[in-house]
Amino acid sequence: MTTPGFGLDHLPYGVFSVAGGERRIGVRHEDAVVDLAAATGRPELTSPSLNAFLGLGPQVWRETREAARSYAESGEHRVPLADVELHLPIDVADYVDFYASEHHASNVGRIFRPDQEPLLPNWKHLPVGYHGRAGTVVASGTPVVRPSGQRPGGAFGPSARLDIEAELGFVVGVGSELGTPVPYDAFADHVFGVVGLNDWSARDIQAWEYVPLGPFLGKSFATSISHWVTPLAALDAAWVDLPGQDPEPLPYLGPGATKGLDIDVEVVVDGAVVSRPPYRSMYWSPAQMLAHMTVNGARLRTGDLYGSGTISGPETDQRGSFLEIGWGDESAFLADGADVTLRYSAPGTDGGRIALGDVTGRIAPAR
Amino acid sequence: MTTPGFGLDHLPYGVFSVAGGERRIGVRHEDAVVDLAAATGRPELTSPSLNAFLGLGPQVWRETREAARSYAESGEHRVPLADVELHLPIDVADYVDFYASEHHASNVGRIFRPDQEPLLPNWKHLPVGYHGRAGTVVASGTPVVRPSGQRPGGAFGPSARLDIEAELGFVVGVGSELGTPVPYDAFADHVFGVVGLNDWSARDIQAWEYVPLGPFLGKSFATSISHWVTPLAALDAAWVDLPGQDPEPLPYLGPGATKGLDIDVEVVVDGAVVSRPPYRSMYWSPAQMLAHMTVNGARLRTGDLYGSGTISGPETDQRGSFLEIGWGDESAFLADGADVTLRYSAPGTDGGRIALGDVTGRIAPAR
Repeated sequence: MTTPGFGLDHLPYGVFSVAGGERRIGVRHEDAVVDLAAATGRPELTSPSLNAFLGLGPQVWRETREAARSYAESGEHRVPLADVELHLPIDVADYVDFYASEHHASNVGRIFRPDQEPLLPNWKHLPVGYHGRAGTVVASGTPVVRPSGQRPGGAFGPSARLDIEAELGFVVGVGSELGTPVPYDAFADHVFGVVGLNDWSARDIQAWEYVPLGPFLGKSFATSISHWVTPLAALDAAWVDLPGQDPEPLPYLGPGATKGLDIDVEVVVDGAVVSRPPYRSMYWSPAQMLAHMTVNGARLRTGDLYGSGTISGPETDQRGSFLEIGWGDESAFLADGADVTLRYSAPGTDGGRIALGDVTGRIAPAR
Repeated sequence: MTTPGFGLDHLPYGVFSVAGGERRIGVRHEDAVVDLAAATGRPELTSPSLNAFLGLGPQVWRETREAARSYAESGEHRVPLADVELHLPIDVADYVDFYASEHHASNVGRIFRPDQEPLLPNWKHLPVGYHGRAGTVVASGTPVVRPSGQRPGGAFGPSARLDIEAELGFVVGVGSELGTPVPYDAFADHVFGVVGLNDWSARDIQAWEYVPLGPFLGKSFATSISHWVTPLAALDAAWVDLPGQDPEPLPYLGPGATKGLDIDVEVVVDGAVVSRPPYRSMYWSPAQMLAHMTVNGARLRTGDLYGSGTISGPETDQRGSFLEIGWGDESAFLADGADVTLRYSAPGTDGGRIALGDVTGRIAPAR
């Protein structure tokens, strides 16, 4: 019996080790890892992170995917998944988090500013985003220690409003030159693939600190990503039109960049599915976020990671944070010991569905 | 004749190369670089950035400083400054920017919110800060291309309000463990030294984008730091009491952490001094910023850089940004071709003054 979603049309990349040995790179096929380091001997694949490989660019990505598929078909260089330890797949260069779901941004606006327009004036003109802490991006499965900090009014203690943000993350492979924007139609020349991403958030810390410079300690204690990076090549069948943009975005943001991804997300707490956010309902596209992030000349580096922001759909059972799921009910936030898993699936290129890497984390008590 | 401020009591660290050769580490003494790579043969000093050396910790920092002083005194391994090229001294891990000057925060509040209290409610309870883009931290002398972007209302074009922020930067040498706060009294166990820092800012881009997640593209196009990193050991005579804090900070922020640094800054445009911000007038201390940044369990990494925020003193000729210097006069912002230098000096341990590394940059036209 094999796990569905990891067939020959998927083959996501990860970093693994066996019995405490050196970290190296493989692709997942069914319930095994194909050891690309052993298979190819390529130095960029005999490496403790994907970065060196990602920096080689789309031509090498294509060739390596073809080779990986051959090894997977022939059954060579397989290591059972049960025998490996999985690690953080990338050395994160810069981490940026966007806010690209209209439903999420509107819900948050209604919760925090009930008497005002839910969306701020800039929201439909640009993908709002900010930089997060790259050094606390951790691999799926890493325990999340409840953070302490200042809460509204200056009281101090462990966060009482610990939350998730169910997101999709985009991994940059090929960097760019300082001073030169990356156009939206160069998306696939720079972005290698996607990861599941949970932007853990302490709402009480965030609420007190965030004016005027944005979220800081309410986010920087941990951001979890999946062990597996799904290459864009495995998502060829997943592209769909965005729901629509009004006003029409400025030329640097499209209008040729308005394709989203038909990825289903499940939020699972202690084994029970509590929400099903649909990534296809996002307002801003992955290519628009990339173009916006660099329009001022900021350069990309191999290993840059950018998150979509919380994925929330139009329905009440499609919300990607407990702030929204609970809507004022404090008991919705995470208790110590809570186990959260984000699951992702998408149409594969062979007619079935692929399962992106899970993102899991259990809440450990404050120290 | 020698340049004042680079005597035996200073010896700041930098990364240099000669005639296109390999980058390596040296200390500046007068108008020469002492080649520590050649002198010691130590692999951490034969390196294209200071990071490996910084990660070795305070005992090695002390021993290396003693050795560097011996080489400087004996005249061995000297390379004339005129013969070297200087580079970005550190691989920046995470870059955080604070907002620690009460005078600056109050001035900005008065300019943007003239009818309200200038300081927001959280400001005197915690050092407000946010993450910036590590990948666009550049070495002094790198030209700054005028960024383009969206301005209020969604218009697009080159920034018309290009500004500086005269800051001091702190370089982390020794990292910390995820989940464990770094107390304020461990400051010197983790922080290696200081750099000059110019947080270039496009005020029009920033004004439109910054709600609710903070500054993003208005800052991320470039942040310049000095070539030279002044070790804390050279600043032993520069510590002074902060002006005072009311309300008393929470226990994790002191009250034993209320020492600032008596560093004078000069803002020089096209050769003329236009302002003299005093770092001793800052509200929050370097140790308080460090303790705050990690109180939620966020870990430190070697190469982390945190900026003080704009240094502005109480007087009108002590302001650290053109937003404040001009106070509504649009012509105060930077024109193409403008050449900005930030100069820093502090009491040295031999009774004179040391000159920290300059930070320079010339504005290049938008592309």
